Amino acid sequence: MNTGNSAYDVGLDRTPANFVALTPLSFLERSELVYGHRTSVIHGDQRWTWRETAARCRRLASALAQRGIGRGDTVAAMLANTPQMLECHFGVPMARAVLNTLNTRLDAAAIAFMLDHAEAKVLITDREFSATIGEALKLARVKPLVIDVDDPLHSGGTLLGSLDYEALLAEGDPQAPGLRPLDEWDAISLNYTSGTTGNPKGVVYHHRGAYLNAVGNVLAASMPMLPVYLWTLPMFHCNGWCFPWTVTALGGTHVCLRRIDPALVFELIRTHGVTHYCGAPIVHTMLINAPAELRAGITQRVTALVAGAAPPAAMIEGMAKIGFDLYHVYGLTEVYGPSAVCERQPEWAHMPLAEQVVKNGRQGVPYVLQEGLTVIDPQTMQQVPADGQTMGEVMFRGNATMKGYLKNPRATEEAFRGGWFHTGDLGVLHPDGYVKLKDRAKDIIISGGENISSLEVEDVLSKHPAVLLSAVVAKPDPKWGETPCAFIELKPGAQASAEEVIAFCRSHMAGFKVPRAVVFGPLPKTSTGKIQKFVLREQVQSVQAIDG
Amino acid sequence: MNTGNSAYDVGLDRTPANFVALTPLSFLERSELVYGHRTSVIHGDQRWTWRETAARCRRLASALAQRGIGRGDTVAAMLANTPQMLECHFGVPMARAVLNTLNTRLDAAAIAFMLDHAEAKVLITDREFSATIGEALKLARVKPLVIDVDDPLHSGGTLLGSLDYEALLAEGDPQAPGLRPLDEWDAISLNYTSGTTGNPKGVVYHHRGAYLNAVGNVLAASMPMLPVYLWTLPMFHCNGWCFPWTVTALGGTHVCLRRIDPALVFELIRTHGVTHYCGAPIVHTMLINAPAELRAGITQRVTALVAGAAPPAAMIEGMAKIGFDLYHVYGLTEVYGPSAVCERQPEWAHMPLAEQVVKNGRQGVPYVLQEGLTVIDPQTMQQVPADGQTMGEVMFRGNATMKGYLKNPRATEEAFRGGWFHTGDLGVLHPDGYVKLKDRAKDIIISGGENISSLEVEDVLSKHPAVLLSAVVAKPDPKWGETPCAFIELKPGAQASAEEVIAFCRSHMAGFKVPRAVVFGPLPKTSTGKIQKFVLREQVQSVQAIDG
Repeated sequence: MNTGNSAYDVGLDRTPANFVALTPLSFLERSELVYGHRTSVIHGDQRWTWRETAARCRRLASALAQRGIGRGDTVAAMLANTPQMLECHFGVPMARAVLNTLNTRLDAAAIAFMLDHAEAKVLITDREFSATIGEALKLARVKPLVIDVDDPLHSGGTLLGSLDYEALLAEGDPQAPGLRPLDEWDAISLNYTSGTTGNPKGVVYHHRGAYLNAVGNVLAASMPMLPVYLWTLPMFHCNGWCFPWTVTALGGTHVCLRRIDPALVFELIRTHGVTHYCGAPIVHTMLINAPAELRAGITQRVTALVAGAAPPAAMIEGMAKIGFDLYHVYGLTEVYGPSAVCERQPEWAHMPLAEQVVKNGRQGVPYVLQEGLTVIDPQTMQQVPADGQTMGEVMFRGNATMKGYLKNPRATEEAFRGGWFHTGDLGVLHPDGYVKLKDRAKDIIISGGENISSLEVEDVLSKHPAVLLSAVVAKPDPKWGETPCAFIELKPGAQASAEEVIAFCRSHMAGFKVPRAVVFGPLPKTSTGKIQKFVLREQVQSVQAIDG
Repeated sequence: MNTGNSAYDVGLDRTPANFVALTPLSFLERSELVYGHRTSVIHGDQRWTWRETAARCRRLASALAQRGIGRGDTVAAMLANTPQMLECHFGVPMARAVLNTLNTRLDAAAIAFMLDHAEAKVLITDREFSATIGEALKLARVKPLVIDVDDPLHSGGTLLGSLDYEALLAEGDPQAPGLRPLDEWDAISLNYTSGTTGNPKGVVYHHRGAYLNAVGNVLAASMPMLPVYLWTLPMFHCNGWCFPWTVTALGGTHVCLRRIDPALVFELIRTHGVTHYCGAPIVHTMLINAPAELRAGITQRVTALVAGAAPPAAMIEGMAKIGFDLYHVYGLTEVYGPSAVCERQPEWAHMPLAEQVVKNGRQGVPYVLQEGLTVIDPQTMQQVPADGQTMGEVMFRGNATMKGYLKNPRATEEAFRGGWFHTGDLGVLHPDGYVKLKDRAKDIIISGGENISSLEVEDVLSKHPAVLLSAVVAKPDPKWGETPCAFIELKPGAQASAEEVIAFCRSHMAGFKVPRAVVFGPLPKTSTGKIQKFVLREQVQSVQAIDG
């Protein structure tokens, strides 16, 4: 094989004319050029144009640079979905710094850990989180420059910083051209994993991956130019799954939102002609279950992306009922949020709903701009047979995969063992090439030697008319080893007894899979709507089984 | 500024899990995985699925590799828009070879030059072109392996080769995984410029650029997944502007077409539910002017991309009349075909048609996945003021710009002078950031010291009801230096006199710009529908001016 030089290798090198490091910063420049007069951001009664937003980002970048912030420095952000948070997604990397968006629901100890681990030089924080941040700053060893965001749409909290965000911007130069990364492999952001156990790991994104996954979102949901995007998904979560960059690439409008309230969500969708939004299942479920009159007057097509769990039948039916288009995407922090999509085959539309739910409930196939997603036996690193039965570990590879874990080469190496990113999710490969998640390894319940998938039990529970949300965890059992215990949040006003729920399960699944205990009440959730099973695993110790 | 190592540079290197060379070969693999059962290619009564097409491409790649073809070797293709031509776009690079698609309308001497210059190791050729190829092979110094494509949809011509394409595929292994490029900067294809003067230059594309511009097309025309794409544009032209890769990335269907015949085009659009096609203005004009009954029964939305010249009023009106959606894109061979788009602002839809034509007739702004397009003074390399008046040279930069010219480092360096690709086109920058082409430098007519834009005169001529196509060139004039001479092709059945045309022009433009001579007849065109002004410049010497 010829691997040496050919005529195609001579005098054909990279030049500034034909090579530019891939970076989402290009998207902002283009939207300023092409859509400078159009609305970039809406927040309450405030409006900005792309020309204004780009100038504000340049101010932020140059102000940070003047204060000595540069390549490899971490700028942390404890912010709601506000214009400032969007600006950080461009202004911070334009100073060649790394944006670390903090989960606003974390406690002070966790925040302090992250500030220290990331060696944060700057912390931009919203008044709403001043109690946590005040405490975190006392706990942290680092002493970042603290910048306050004083959002008129939030009252309460205090100002902690040495400088207001607008004052920082005033220091900057709206004309100063932003810096570009020295290399597209340079870090653009840092996202700590949710860390339900142990210390969180710092997932590093690079400019190349952010660029490619931002464009990957466009293809995954067939997004046209000029979307109007509602920020129901926290921007701190995997950089809002890269949508700060996606929407900007498309010259769209970002509609900010501090908290999810169905009445407000529908009002914004109606008023601003929102065309797209993303969220965990809980977001869509809330909208589906909201009073129908809230939806009056919405005439445009709304496209929603759901990730975090497979959409159950009620959600797929519900979205169709309210006329919203649903794309099921899948991923993890390590792959820039979703980088898989349950690509919808046209023939599915003609199947009975139950079959559609099965098809659409799968995690699917890699994004066009990701490279690989499959199920692999982690021992042999061989792909499992595409039989829909053989369990293996779900793995990704490609350009929308993290740079690695910050200051944790061992974890990075372990995660990338064998040339694939190991998700820790267990799944099967269907004959049509789609991946179906079965469970996290730790979510498998082993009862009497039989494996029970908690997801499967939850799927059945979701079909019960009174059930809003459910989570099934293993309860230690002297006889069976473990038995399934169901935690259930009922729909508002709905009623159900444990006995009814168990009888319902018994008619829908093998007897050994039926929960032996049922607990009603609101479920503990992360800020991104994921149910915190580790909290339930603690609670389950004191639950009495029905037949126990 | 910190440009050294930070924590973000340590232990976070490229691995097979998080880095894959960008290449359109990924698109084929994905479409086989996700859309394996769907139709990839339609050609007459023949059909293939993505599973079959991918297997055929692997056969081609492995057969070439077995015959010693590898990295840096040129495989030339003299093919119509057939399934084999599409397969070459994947199978050849999967052998790490470089695909050189030859313009099927060139003469033997030009083909021989290209075969020699590219050092072609293999030539895949269709019977239709056997006369030219037979002669070219006699003229050429290189002795490539000649493979015949014996397409049942063409009769005539002879088989020249030592091997039939299907026999070559039979040598290959449908299971052999295709090779990936060693580097995304590796050459994927070679496209000779049309070479209206002097020897053509060999424009080298790389895998990275082909990948990015293929995706850039998706955003430029807001293309959804699963398009049905009709091959009205020659695939030999800038690799079909990258659409072999674009349509494959979207899991779409390629509908092949050997020659443009409006009746056949409309039949294929109707029968196969075609959603997209591309072409030079002549293609769209032919469809607009075809009998309305040919369009009966077409109910789907059809989106067309036009490049090669700004769409005149008649085309914009005409496309609206036949219900086709039109995107105006702009580029050159050196930027992978179009990498600029006249991005449509929503408010234009409410303007009077004449204003819409002005807006849409501009070359526009860079693709989202290209980096820069602007107008620059080539002396100072400063951007011209965005005043719509100051002329300069139109220049591109970014990742959708060629690797350079093969074996021509001087031309490459010249083309990339100052960090931009110099198009040779003259234009102005409008206040809204859009580029408007005024003329090729050589298309400016200087009459009595005044500059006349031949494009401007052609724009006016296109508004005359009898004019199908026009081209204006400079005619040497003893008094004025030069005067404009108009060559006009009338619509079928239409009539007009030179005096009428001149009177029409006089009422629509300044007197000095009015053509002094008018010549009627079919215009000489390149195979891609571009009018060959160099032919007219020869003819013009013998034209008698009206007032001369």
